[in-house]
Amino acid sequence: MAAKSWVPVPDGSPFPVQNLPYCVFSYAGEDPRVGVAIGSYVLDLAPLAASEWADFASVFAGPSLNPFMALGRRAWHAVRHWLTERLTDESHRDLVEPLLIPMDQVRLHMPFTVADFVDFFASEHHATNMGRLIRPGEQPLTPNWRHLPIAYHSRAGSVAVSGTPVRRPSGQYRVPGRAEPVFGPTERLDFEAEVGFVIGTPTTPGQRLSVDDARDHIFGVVLVNDWSARDIQAWEYRPLGPFNSKSFLTSISPWVIPLDALEPAMIPPPAQDPEPLPYLRGSHDFGLDLSLRVELNGEVISRPRYARMYWTPGQMLAHLTSCGATLRTGDLVASGTVSGPDATEWGCLAELTVDGTEPLKLAGGATRSYLEDGDQVTISATAPVGDGLTLGFGEVTGRVDPA
Amino acid sequence: MAAKSWVPVPDGSPFPVQNLPYCVFSYAGEDPRVGVAIGSYVLDLAPLAASEWADFASVFAGPSLNPFMALGRRAWHAVRHWLTERLTDESHRDLVEPLLIPMDQVRLHMPFTVADFVDFFASEHHATNMGRLIRPGEQPLTPNWRHLPIAYHSRAGSVAVSGTPVRRPSGQYRVPGRAEPVFGPTERLDFEAEVGFVIGTPTTPGQRLSVDDARDHIFGVVLVNDWSARDIQAWEYRPLGPFNSKSFLTSISPWVIPLDALEPAMIPPPAQDPEPLPYLRGSHDFGLDLSLRVELNGEVISRPRYARMYWTPGQMLAHLTSCGATLRTGDLVASGTVSGPDATEWGCLAELTVDGTEPLKLAGGATRSYLEDGDQVTISATAPVGDGLTLGFGEVTGRVDPA
Repeated sequence: MAAKSWVPVPDGSPFPVQNLPYCVFSYAGEDPRVGVAIGSYVLDLAPLAASEWADFASVFAGPSLNPFMALGRRAWHAVRHWLTERLTDESHRDLVEPLLIPMDQVRLHMPFTVADFVDFFASEHHATNMGRLIRPGEQPLTPNWRHLPIAYHSRAGSVAVSGTPVRRPSGQYRVPGRAEPVFGPTERLDFEAEVGFVIGTPTTPGQRLSVDDARDHIFGVVLVNDWSARDIQAWEYRPLGPFNSKSFLTSISPWVIPLDALEPAMIPPPAQDPEPLPYLRGSHDFGLDLSLRVELNGEVISRPRYARMYWTPGQMLAHLTSCGATLRTGDLVASGTVSGPDATEWGCLAELTVDGTEPLKLAGGATRSYLEDGDQVTISATAPVGDGLTLGFGEVTGRVDPA
Repeated sequence: MAAKSWVPVPDGSPFPVQNLPYCVFSYAGEDPRVGVAIGSYVLDLAPLAASEWADFASVFAGPSLNPFMALGRRAWHAVRHWLTERLTDESHRDLVEPLLIPMDQVRLHMPFTVADFVDFFASEHHATNMGRLIRPGEQPLTPNWRHLPIAYHSRAGSVAVSGTPVRRPSGQYRVPGRAEPVFGPTERLDFEAEVGFVIGTPTTPGQRLSVDDARDHIFGVVLVNDWSARDIQAWEYRPLGPFNSKSFLTSISPWVIPLDALEPAMIPPPAQDPEPLPYLRGSHDFGLDLSLRVELNGEVISRPRYARMYWTPGQMLAHLTSCGATLRTGDLVASGTVSGPDATEWGCLAELTVDGTEPLKLAGGATRSYLEDGDQVTISATAPVGDGLTLGFGEVTGRVDPA
């Protein structure tokens, strides 16, 4: 039978005791600090540690998860075990209950300090769909795509927490019928539904990870919306890749789901053809059975499934470190847009509307090619935790402000 | 007549009193802290400030220039004025002399903490030469090149100080005659001679810089060697740009030359055709008359001139912020390879050897297509400071270790 907390957890809550995601929160004008979600509450970790486990009090007292994430997997396990016990064994109620703060009374902050932000391109469906749109008449997948997990670095300083307003970016792009580019607010503002892996344990200089090492380094998982300006992207991306079209804002969910909580969601990696080179092969690699949901102004427009992804998190990290680059605590390694084989699972408007040529039909007769000012995009996700139960990621949301 | 320091400055020293570049140094086992170069000495700033300007003592006592850089242009000016006075007016000798440490007795560290690392592609000669090599048969310059300063984000965590060993990276690439890629040590290891602009003053969210705002935000200038693996790059770069081929190591010089010291080196920006869009035009934009020198194992193989660059630092920052991205203290904004119209000014081996097909002839009958293990590359630069004098950047150097 599934473990149960003495804290009341409403049916369907994203935050059963099997989840225990971390956040940075503030409450009643006090300084931001580390918390963990249980049901409809945030548990204030610094005072709990102060009374039971003094070593960790300062780790949880600051405005960032990085000090905790840097401690490594053994510490993450130990803390998760400690919290599970405190929240399932009612004998701890007197100690813990005063430290539970109703979630609707806290403010959630950026949960960690981003070191480098790498964005992969790990969905074959997304890469194929985008190839068709951006390079019509050519092979949609570039020749390298099935041999290595393609990635690029994006702007760490532009990663912000869910709820940050999405100011419509301006930039340079070409409009039909004009040879010269123009500068102005993007006319093709898009979202991208992604999953982000947050690095806890750094690597040492020169250390190359095997595909099977991922669990030692990934502290947890967040949802990512990598807002994109498709017109700017199409004009700027040759030959060095996307830049301003992706660097104005990337939103992440405030809850970092521990990788350990996703153990029941781990599934065999997908079949890959051709077989990847040895440095991209593992003996206990995994994919993740996450069900994403994208809402536009409250209406569900897509349900991407992370199980569809071609390249695994382990392969991403093995590839990233294969050249000698080191991982740092706080690196954000995102998957790229999560898309499946048909439109019910496409993770961005460029795919859903065929670059705006086949507008989405929304409730009440509205249509959308790309995002309009005032539009709100919300991405959420669930994962199985066994016994037919699921955990939730919370959500990453953002509303488009005018340029 | 040029100002002169009472500290003896040897003829030809890179560090006359007109320069006063900042570094982070350690000495005699003590903690790293901020210093400034004068002649053959490093002036220890924290104790100098402690005795004269207490506000700054803690700013200079730490292992990074970031706290000082964050104070903004007025503070940079004031400190430079203060230091110039202390080092030119002999009445300060008793105070200052005990704080001068012979440069050959200090260890130089990474001078600042890199926030985001952006690498531009601002030399038309380099972009054209590389286009010919990488996309033979196509127009060497992509259609966007003369309309916007192309850039990509690279790996901030891989930026290291001069002297860091260059371990030959491994990666995936194709070899002639084989359809499938291989994984192994790069066979085409290259350097790239670049100039890097270090951001001091951050921007506020949504603030777009004009081309003329550069001086308020650029604290100083460093030399950059953006080590590159050309075989990995050629295979991986489509469609999202270079990744592992550039992210194993980027070396920078330990001295940050204040932008103010380069005032006499500021020159009118180059003619640009077509005229750029209004957001890339300024009324007092500038180029920089810097003379670079690249040595391979002590032999000069190229003398790139920064005056040849097409896009200016002001245009780079205006473009970067045009989408709404913010600058942070510690952002490193590099120019891309500095190349001129002919081989005496080409800034990387891919250009100098036509991708290895026309090896360089070196002294003693040696030849080089790409870098071999044990090779040492050293980039230095000078700039005019008036009265026929120059300042130097010191150097950025690195030696290739086996894979």
